[in-house]
Amino acid sequence: MAFRLPASQLCKAVAAPASTVRPMRTLGLSMHASQQQLRWLATPTPQHPVTQNATGSRGPTAMVFLNMGGPSTTDEVGDFLSRLFSDADLIPLGRLQGYIGPLLSKRRTPKIQKQYAAIGGGSPIRKWSELQCAEMCKLLDKISPETAPHKPYVAFRYANPLTEEMYERLLADGFGNGNGGRAVAFTQYPQYSCSTTGSSINELWKWRQRLEGKSGSLEYGKDGAIEWSVIDRWPVHPGLVEAFARNIEEKLAEYPEERRDKVVLLFSAHSLPMSVVNRGDPYPAEVAATVYAVMQRLKFSNQYRLCWQSQVGPQPWLGPQTATSVEEYIAKGQKDLVLIPIAFTSDHIETLYELDEEIIGESGHADTVKRVESLNGNPIFIEALANLAKSHLDSGITASLQMGLRCPGCKSDRCAESKKFFAGQPALAAP
Amino acid sequence: MAFRLPASQLCKAVAAPASTVRPMRTLGLSMHASQQQLRWLATPTPQHPVTQNATGSRGPTAMVFLNMGGPSTTDEVGDFLSRLFSDADLIPLGRLQGYIGPLLSKRRTPKIQKQYAAIGGGSPIRKWSELQCAEMCKLLDKISPETAPHKPYVAFRYANPLTEEMYERLLADGFGNGNGGRAVAFTQYPQYSCSTTGSSINELWKWRQRLEGKSGSLEYGKDGAIEWSVIDRWPVHPGLVEAFARNIEEKLAEYPEERRDKVVLLFSAHSLPMSVVNRGDPYPAEVAATVYAVMQRLKFSNQYRLCWQSQVGPQPWLGPQTATSVEEYIAKGQKDLVLIPIAFTSDHIETLYELDEEIIGESGHADTVKRVESLNGNPIFIEALANLAKSHLDSGITASLQMGLRCPGCKSDRCAESKKFFAGQPALAAP
Repeated sequence: MAFRLPASQLCKAVAAPASTVRPMRTLGLSMHASQQQLRWLATPTPQHPVTQNATGSRGPTAMVFLNMGGPSTTDEVGDFLSRLFSDADLIPLGRLQGYIGPLLSKRRTPKIQKQYAAIGGGSPIRKWSELQCAEMCKLLDKISPETAPHKPYVAFRYANPLTEEMYERLLADGFGNGNGGRAVAFTQYPQYSCSTTGSSINELWKWRQRLEGKSGSLEYGKDGAIEWSVIDRWPVHPGLVEAFARNIEEKLAEYPEERRDKVVLLFSAHSLPMSVVNRGDPYPAEVAATVYAVMQRLKFSNQYRLCWQSQVGPQPWLGPQTATSVEEYIAKGQKDLVLIPIAFTSDHIETLYELDEEIIGESGHADTVKRVESLNGNPIFIEALANLAKSHLDSGITASLQMGLRCPGCKSDRCAESKKFFAGQPALAAP
Repeated sequence: MAFRLPASQLCKAVAAPASTVRPMRTLGLSMHASQQQLRWLATPTPQHPVTQNATGSRGPTAMVFLNMGGPSTTDEVGDFLSRLFSDADLIPLGRLQGYIGPLLSKRRTPKIQKQYAAIGGGSPIRKWSELQCAEMCKLLDKISPETAPHKPYVAFRYANPLTEEMYERLLADGFGNGNGGRAVAFTQYPQYSCSTTGSSINELWKWRQRLEGKSGSLEYGKDGAIEWSVIDRWPVHPGLVEAFARNIEEKLAEYPEERRDKVVLLFSAHSLPMSVVNRGDPYPAEVAATVYAVMQRLKFSNQYRLCWQSQVGPQPWLGPQTATSVEEYIAKGQKDLVLIPIAFTSDHIETLYELDEEIIGESGHADTVKRVESLNGNPIFIEALANLAKSHLDSGITASLQMGLRCPGCKSDRCAESKKFFAGQPALAAP
C-alpha cells in the first residue's frame, strides 16, 4: 500500500473520539504525517451537513468505483470507442485528437462489435462493478459503522454510467451543492497509470469543477462541496494478493499432479505505449510489484513471466507480448501455461475475448493453456476491497503521497491541476 | 528471494545430521521440493574428495562472485570494451558481432578512458568485490561451519579476474579435475537479466565445459568435476533492502528537516534495449520488486520514481531516462532529488561518473540533487550476503526454479544449454 502512513499507525496516533476531531483546513501541498496528526487534534468537528440518514458520526459516505467500463450492448460500442479515442490521457493523438479520434473509433467499431457479440453481446464490467461496490458497502457498514451508511456508486470513463452521470446522482442524493458530505473515489485499477486511474481522476476533477464550481483547492471544504478523497493504488494489498494466489492455485489444481509444478505462470497486464512508459508512468513497476507479491505468496512454486497484452497500432508498446509469449513457449515445448490477468479485477473484452478466444482459442492447445478466473464476485476480493476502504477512511489521508508526484515527462496541465486538487488537500476527518 | 522453497522450510524438512545425508544423483529437470526432500534422506554421504583442509563436514566451499567488472587502470579500458562489445548476451549485434564489436569498442575507448581518468584512474569494482567476498566468507565460516572453509573468488565478465582465470585458480586450489568439491556462483547483480547474470553464467558454463570436459549435466557429479550451484537472483532479500533503506535514510537526513519529506527519490537502474525487454527479460520486473520492497521498508515516506540510466546508441531502450528525469523534475521546480543506484552493489563508472559527474554535476543543483552511497563495504550488506549464501548452502538447491525458464523470445542455444546445466542439476548436499 502506497499510503502516506500505515493505517494502524495513524489510528494509534489519533486517539481522540471520532466526533470531536476534524482536520484544520490549510492550504498548500501534502503535509508531513506528524503535522497532519497535530492538526487533526486541533480543530473541533462540526455536525455533518448532508441531509441523509447518517447512522455513523461521520456518515454517510459515498463510495465511488472508478474504472474504464465497457459497452453493455453492441449498440454502445461506437460511443464507447469514440470516448476512448478522444481521451488524450489514454491515447495521446496531439492537436488532431478531435479529428483522428473519431476516425479511428469509426473504423474499429464493426470489428469490436463482433468481439463483444462473441462474448455474449456486451461487457460484464458494469454488472461486476455494481455488485462489487454494493457488497463492499454492506461489509463497510459493519466494519466501519462510524462512516455508515456507505452508498455505492460507479463511474466509468468510456461507458455508462459516466462520471457526469455519477456526479449528478451524488448531487441528487444530497451530497455537495452546499451540503458537503464525503465521497471516496476508489480506483478499480490496482496499479496506477496515468492512462487509467489518472484519466478517471482527471475526469472526476473536470466534472467536480463544472458541477460544483471552480473554487479549486483553495476554498476546498469551505464551500459545502463534496469532500473527496482518493484510493489511487493498491498493488500489493494482502487481500488482493490472496485472491489472485488462490485463483492460481485452483487453476493449477486442474493439471495432473505430475505436471503441476512444471506449469509456467504467465501474468498478463494491459500494455502501455512506450511513449507513456518513457514519460515515467508508474504502472509497469507497480504491476511488477503485484506479480512479485503473488509469487511470494505462492512461495515461488512455479516458473513465471510478466507479459503485456492488447498492443494496438504501429507505435512501439511495452513487451513481451502475451500472445507471442504463449506461441513461443508452446514452440519451445512448454504447453502447460496458466494466464493470469493481473491488472484488472473483472472480466472484460481483454480476458473473455483476447485471452480466451484469440490467444488460448487459437493456440492449438486450449486443453493445456488455461486462464485463471477473474476476481469478479470473489468474496475474498470483496472483503479486501472493504478492508482497504476502511483503512483509507480511518487514515484521513486524501490520496497516497505518490499520487502528488507527476511523471517526470508529464506535460499535461490538466494532470497537474487535478493532482494539485486531489493530492494537495489537507487531511480529512479521521476516527 | 526466488528460491524453490524458503530456507526455513527446507531446514525443518531435512532434519538428519549434515554428515549422513546427500542427495541422490538423478537426471532431468528441477525436482519438486517434496521429492528433493525425500531424496536427501535416501542416500549416504561419501567423504568429500577435495584434498584441502576442510574444517566442515561438507567443506571447503568456493564462493565465486560474478559481476561485469571494470578496468582497474585506464590502460585496461580497450580490452574491457572489446570484451563487452563482443558479448552477444549483452549487446546483440548479430552475425557481424566479430566485426562491429571491435570497431565500436575502438571508437569509444578514448572517451571512456577519460571517464575512468576522471574517477581516479580506474574502477573500484575489483577492490570492493574482493573485499565483499572475503568478508562474507569470514562470516560464513562462523555461521555455516559445516561448509567451511569458504574460499573467496571473483569472476568478472569483461575485466580481470576473468572467468577463465578464476576457474584455473579453482583447479589449482584443488577443486575439480577429478577431486570434486563444491562451488557456489553468486551473482552480484541482485536482479536477473540475461545481459548480466545470464551472460556471466553462460561464460562460466563455457569455461566449465572447456576446462572440465564436455560431460554436461548427464554425468554431473560422477566425474570428479566441481559441483556448481548458483545464487542467481535476490531482488528483495531483507538484508539488501535494509542496506538500501538505511543509506536512503542517511542521505535524506542531510536535507533540512522542513524539506526532508518533500525530497523525491529517484531509483536508477541500468537500462536495457527494448529488444531485450520485449524478448521477455525478467530484469525490469525484478528491479521494480526491489524498489517496491525498499519503499515498503521506508513506509512510503517520500515520493519516488524508477528510472533507467546508461542508454547508448540509436536503438530504443527502456525509460524513463534518469538524466532527463532529473532535468524534468528540476524544470518542474522539484530540486530536492535523491538518486539511488538500485541494481548494482558497488561503485562503478555509472555511479561515480554518470550519476555524480554528468547528471548531478551538470544539473546546476549539485547541492540539492544527491546520490546515496553505494553498498560497497557496508557491513549490513555484507551480512546480508552471508545470510543469503548460508540459506543457499542449507537448501541444497542448485539454482532458483525461475532460472530454468528461458525468456519467451530467447533464441540462444548457449543460453538453453547453460540453463539446462545449472538449473537442471539434481539437488546438492544439504545439512
